[in-house]
Amino acid sequence: MKARVHVMLKDGVLDPQGEAVRHALGSLGFGGVQGVRQGKVIELDLAEGTTEDTVRQMCEKLLANTVIESYRIEMA
Amino acid sequence: MKARVHVMLKDGVLDPQGEAVRHALGSLGFGGVQGVRQGKVIELDLAEGTTEDTVRQMCEKLLANTVIESYRIEMA
Repeated sequence: MKARVHVMLKDGVLDPQGEAVRHALGSLGFGGVQGVRQGKVIELDLAEGTTEDTVRQMCEKLLANTVIESYRIEMA
Repeated sequence: MKARVHVMLKDGVLDPQGEAVRHALGSLGFGGVQGVRQGKVIELDLAEGTTEDTVRQMCEKLLANTVIESYRIEMA
């Protein structure tokens, strides 16, 4: 089974990488880009029967830094 | 309006970052993790009326390296 985890910086945490992308898009002539936030997506290929709770533990312990990042889990 | 772009390494392209996560999850005692792929998610805050086609151009020109990466656009 598959799980997908999205990890994004929390609102209010400065995102220099996203800011660089926003600036670069402007330089390339794409107007109207008001904000860009960049995060990670992690696709996990798991043994059958793995619960969302287990994936949550993975996030808390390794995948996300919960001080500055929030995460969202999609089981598929 | 918002758009979200997922950028993942194409199948067959080695993903050392994902492999490192897989190994680390095993070391932490999470069994049964058969594979991990790590990618990027980019959230764009765009001017009203921006089309998916414009976002596709952003991907082709800047956000994804289409030689080794595939991308997927979600308009919201």
